[in-house]
Amino acid sequence: MTRLLRQYLPILDWGRTYDRNALSNDLIAAVIVTIMLIPQSLAYALLAGLPPEAGIYASIVPIMLYAVFGTSRALAVGPVAVVSLLTASAVGQVAEQGTAGYAVAALTLALMSGGFLMALGLFRLGFLANFLSHPVIAGFITASGILIATSQLKHVLGVEAEGHTLVEMVGSILSHLNQTNWITLIIGAAATGFLFWVRKGLKPLLRRAGLGPRMADVLTKAGPVAAVVVTTLLTWGFGLDGQGVKIVGSVPQSLPPLTMPGLAPDLLRQLAIPAILISIIGFVESVSVAQTLAAKKRQRIDPDQELIGLGAANIGAAFTGGYPVTGGFARSVVNFDAGAETPAAGAFTAVGLAIAAVALTPLVYFLPKATLAATIIVAVLSLVDFSILKKTWGYSKSDFAAVAATIVLTLWQGVEIGVASGVLLSIGLHLYKTSRPHVAEVGLVPGTHHFRNINRHKVETDPSLLSIRIDESLYFVNARFLEDLIQDRIAEGCAVKNVVLMCPAVNEVDYSALESLEAINHRLKDFGIGFHLSEVKGPVMDRLKTSHFLSELNGKVYLSHYDAWQDLLPQPVSRAAE
Amino acid sequence: MTRLLRQYLPILDWGRTYDRNALSNDLIAAVIVTIMLIPQSLAYALLAGLPPEAGIYASIVPIMLYAVFGTSRALAVGPVAVVSLLTASAVGQVAEQGTAGYAVAALTLALMSGGFLMALGLFRLGFLANFLSHPVIAGFITASGILIATSQLKHVLGVEAEGHTLVEMVGSILSHLNQTNWITLIIGAAATGFLFWVRKGLKPLLRRAGLGPRMADVLTKAGPVAAVVVTTLLTWGFGLDGQGVKIVGSVPQSLPPLTMPGLAPDLLRQLAIPAILISIIGFVESVSVAQTLAAKKRQRIDPDQELIGLGAANIGAAFTGGYPVTGGFARSVVNFDAGAETPAAGAFTAVGLAIAAVALTPLVYFLPKATLAATIIVAVLSLVDFSILKKTWGYSKSDFAAVAATIVLTLWQGVEIGVASGVLLSIGLHLYKTSRPHVAEVGLVPGTHHFRNINRHKVETDPSLLSIRIDESLYFVNARFLEDLIQDRIAEGCAVKNVVLMCPAVNEVDYSALESLEAINHRLKDFGIGFHLSEVKGPVMDRLKTSHFLSELNGKVYLSHYDAWQDLLPQPVSRAAE
Repeated sequence: MTRLLRQYLPILDWGRTYDRNALSNDLIAAVIVTIMLIPQSLAYALLAGLPPEAGIYASIVPIMLYAVFGTSRALAVGPVAVVSLLTASAVGQVAEQGTAGYAVAALTLALMSGGFLMALGLFRLGFLANFLSHPVIAGFITASGILIATSQLKHVLGVEAEGHTLVEMVGSILSHLNQTNWITLIIGAAATGFLFWVRKGLKPLLRRAGLGPRMADVLTKAGPVAAVVVTTLLTWGFGLDGQGVKIVGSVPQSLPPLTMPGLAPDLLRQLAIPAILISIIGFVESVSVAQTLAAKKRQRIDPDQELIGLGAANIGAAFTGGYPVTGGFARSVVNFDAGAETPAAGAFTAVGLAIAAVALTPLVYFLPKATLAATIIVAVLSLVDFSILKKTWGYSKSDFAAVAATIVLTLWQGVEIGVASGVLLSIGLHLYKTSRPHVAEVGLVPGTHHFRNINRHKVETDPSLLSIRIDESLYFVNARFLEDLIQDRIAEGCAVKNVVLMCPAVNEVDYSALESLEAINHRLKDFGIGFHLSEVKGPVMDRLKTSHFLSELNGKVYLSHYDAWQDLLPQPVSRAAE
Repeated sequence: MTRLLRQYLPILDWGRTYDRNALSNDLIAAVIVTIMLIPQSLAYALLAGLPPEAGIYASIVPIMLYAVFGTSRALAVGPVAVVSLLTASAVGQVAEQGTAGYAVAALTLALMSGGFLMALGLFRLGFLANFLSHPVIAGFITASGILIATSQLKHVLGVEAEGHTLVEMVGSILSHLNQTNWITLIIGAAATGFLFWVRKGLKPLLRRAGLGPRMADVLTKAGPVAAVVVTTLLTWGFGLDGQGVKIVGSVPQSLPPLTMPGLAPDLLRQLAIPAILISIIGFVESVSVAQTLAAKKRQRIDPDQELIGLGAANIGAAFTGGYPVTGGFARSVVNFDAGAETPAAGAFTAVGLAIAAVALTPLVYFLPKATLAATIIVAVLSLVDFSILKKTWGYSKSDFAAVAATIVLTLWQGVEIGVASGVLLSIGLHLYKTSRPHVAEVGLVPGTHHFRNINRHKVETDPSLLSIRIDESLYFVNARFLEDLIQDRIAEGCAVKNVVLMCPAVNEVDYSALESLEAINHRLKDFGIGFHLSEVKGPVMDRLKTSHFLSELNGKVYLSHYDAWQDLLPQPVSRAAE
C-alpha cells in the first residue's frame, strides 16, 4: 500500500528528506523563474487567443499539482509556445476568439487533455508517444515556430488578421498591411530587436564587464521584463493607447478563479482529436526535457507517472481558468540552472505567480501587445532549425521524407494534418522497409565456421545447398516476400537438394509467417527438396514448438549454420522418393 | 523493347510455344469450367444485387483480358462470392437495388478497382497487399461466408429483407418471416440439401459405383447444373411462378453489351474506399490461388504483373456490363484439375459462356431464385472455418486478437469496418511488440566465446562491464525504450565502467534511434562510463559511418562481443578523468 502510494505520489519520496539547504536552493530558483514567467505567461495566453490572465492562472495550480504527482525534480509546468498554438488552432474551430465560449472551450480542451494523459498513465500506455519519431518532432517544432512567429506579426504591425496555416496568415496580413499602425510597429520592432540583442549580444558584454556567468545568465533572462517595463512606461507616459497602440488593458486582480469546463457532447466530440494531439505532443516535449535534466544528476523519471503528473496539471488548469499546459523547455532549463532541487521550487514559483496575479496585474494595463508578440517571436525563432533536413538527408532518406512532409504539411495545411501525416508516413515507411528485408545468399568463409553474403565475400558454396540468411523478423508484411523469393530461386536452379534458412536476425515469426513457412515446406517437399532452419533464437523456437510446423518440417533445425553445412553436404540427402 | 513487351504481355511468352496437345487439354478444361460457371455466374450476380446476365458478362471479356496480361497459367477470373458481397455492400450505399443507377455504379466500381489495380501494378506496389495478414484474411473470409449465407436466406424463404450487417439481416428476415412463401422454401431447402449431399456424399458413391476419380469429380461439379435443371422444369411444369415463387425471368439474349460506367465526381468519391478494399481483397485472394497452383508445376507468377492482369480484367468488366471480378479459388482449382495448360483455356471458357449468353439464356426464365441462393449458401459455407481462432490462440495472442476483431467487427459492423479494423489492429500490435523489444543482459558462457542471457544460463559477468543484447531493430518506436533502459541500469548500479550494446539482431538504426544512441553516449560520457557496440551488421555499420556518431563515440565498435570482453576486462579503462 505504501509502495503503491509512493509510486503514484512521488512527493512522499522527496518530501521526507526535504531540508533547509534544499529549501534555500528551491527559493532562489523560484524567484528567478517567477520573474521570467510573468511576461511569458501573458504572451502565451495572447498566442492561444485567451485573455492574458489565463496564462498566469495556467501556471499556478498546474505547477502545484505537478509537484505532487510528477517525477521530475526540475520540470517547470505551464503554458508553452507549441501547445498554445495548438490550443488556438483547436479552439478557433469551435468558437470565436474573445467570446466566453472560446475561454470555456479552452478549459474543456485542458480537461480532455488531462483526462487522456491520466488514462494513458494509469493504463501505462506512455509508449504511444514513441510513434512521434525524432525527425517528425523536430520538423513539427520548426514548422510550429514559423507559424507562431508569423501569427504574431499582426500584433507587431497593429493590424487585424487571422488564419491557421502559413498561406492564410500571410495572405491575411498582406491584405491588411495598409492598416499598419506605425507607433505599434516601432514599439514591436524595437522590442524584437532589443530581445534578439539580449539573447545574442548581452551575455558576452556582461561577462566582459566582469559579471560572473550565473549573474550574466540571470540578467539575460530578465530581458523580456525590461522590455515590458520600458514599453509599458512609454505607452503610459505618452498616452500611446490613444494613438491606436493595442494594450493589455485591465486584468482582474485575483487568485485563479474556480471555473467549469464546457461538457456539451458536441464540444467534446469536436475537441477529441485536438486533445489527443495536444496531450501527446505536450507529453513528448515534456518527457524529453525531464529526461535530459534527470540524466544530468543520475536521477530517474518514470514516463508513465509523468503522464499522471501532466494529466493532473491539465485537469487543474481546466478548473482554475487556465488552458492546456505541459513541461516547458526554456522554463525547466532556467529552473534547473538556477539550482532547483525538488518540485518544491515549482510550488514556490506558483506562490510567486499568485502574488503577481493579486498584486501586479494593474501594472500591465498599459503593456503593449506588440511587446508580448516580440517576446514570443524571439522565443520561438530559436525553435526553428532546418538543419534536421540536412542531417536526415545524409543519414536516411525515409527519415528525411518524414521530416520534410511534416514541415511542408504543417505550414501548408496546419498543425494537426502536419503532425498526423508525419506519424503516418514514418510508420508507413518503416513497414515498407521491413516488407522488403535484406536477404543474403550465404556461403562458407574458407577455413572458418562463418557464413557470409556470396555477393560481398569470397566464399565456398555447393549447388545442392541453398543457404539464405534473412535479416528481419518474419511477419505478415514480409511473409509473402519470403515465399516469392524461395519459389523464384527454386524455379531457376534445379540442382538444389536442400534449402537452409539462417535465422539469427529473426526476432519474431508471426502466424502469417508461420503459414508461409509451412507453404514453403510443402512446396519444397513436393519437389523432394529438404527445408531446414538454422540459428533460430530461443523465443522464436519456443513459439514454433507450440505449432505443428516442426513435426511436419521436411528437414531439421540446426543450432549453427555450420552444423547444417556439415550435415547436409558430405552425403547430400535425396528425399525425392518420399 | 521486346523484353518490356514480354514482361507486360505474358501471352507472347506462352503463345509462341502453343501446340495441339496444349490446345486439346485447354479445350477439355474449358468445357468443364463453362458448365460449372453458368449457374455460378447467375448466382453471384444475384448476390451482388445485379441482374443475372451481369454475372455471365463479367466472366467473358475479363477472362480474355486476363489471358493476355496475366501470368498464371490456371487462374480463372470472374465473379467470386466475397467480391460480390463487397460489391453489394458498396453499391447498395449509393443506389437502390434494381435501378439503372445500381448497375451503373457497379460498372464504376469495376472501373475504379481496375484502375487502382493497374496503377499498383505499374508502380510495382503489390506489396501493399501484404498488410492483410493471413489471420485477418482468414477471419474476414469466414465472417463473409456467414454474411453471404445469411443474405441468401431471404431468397430461400421467399421474403423481402435487407441490411448489410448480420444483426440487420437477421432482424429484417425475422420481421418478415410471416410472409414466407412455402413453395419457395421447399424448393430452396431441397436444393440446399441436395447440393450439400452432392458435395459430401455423391463422390464416394460414384467411386463405389466404379467411376474413375476424375469422372466422379466432374459429375460432382455438375451438381448445381442438375439442381438448376430440375427446379426450372418443376417451376415451368407446375406454373409455380404463379404461386409466388420468384424466378430469374427474361434474360437478354446477347453478347456482352458495350456499357459506360458512371463518372460523376460524387459517385467516384463515394466508391473510392470500397474500390480500394475490393481491389486489395480480390488481389490477395487471386494471388494466393495463382501462387499455390503455379508452385505445383514449378512455374512463377509475377505479383506486380498479376495486378496489371486483374486491373485489365476489371476495366474490361466495367465496359461490358459486368462488375468487379478477381481470380476465384473454386473455378481456378477446377480449371487446373481439369488439365488447363495455358490461359487459352480461359479464353475458350469465355467463348463457351458467350455461346451460353446468346443461346441458353431463355432456358433459365423459370429458374427459381431460391435455387441460385442454395448454390451460393452451399458454396460459401465451405469458406466458414473458425479453426483459425483456435490455431492463432495457441500460437500467438496478438494474431488471435486480429482475427477475432476481424470476425466480430465484420459481422457486427459490416465488411469494410471489419477488414479495416483487422488491418489496423495487426499493424498496431506489431508496432507495440517492437516497441518493447526483448532485451537480455548477457554474460560469457564459461570456456566458450559465446554470450548468453544471464537469467537463462550460468554465465560469467563482471560488475564493471554491462553487456546488453537487444533483439530488435532500433527505430523510433523503441528508441526511447533503450534510453530508459540504460538510464535505469546506470541509476541502479554504480560500479559499471563500460556499457557494450550487442547488436547482432539490429537490422536497422533509424535517425531517431541514432539520436537516442547519441544521447546515451553523452550521458554515459558525463559519468565517465565507456559506451561500445559489438557485432554491428554491415548495412547498419555503413549507415552509422555517414553520421558523426562513431567519431563522437566514447568507446569502440567491436567485431565480436568476445573481443569487447577481452579488451575491456583485463585492464578496465577508467575515463572518469576526461
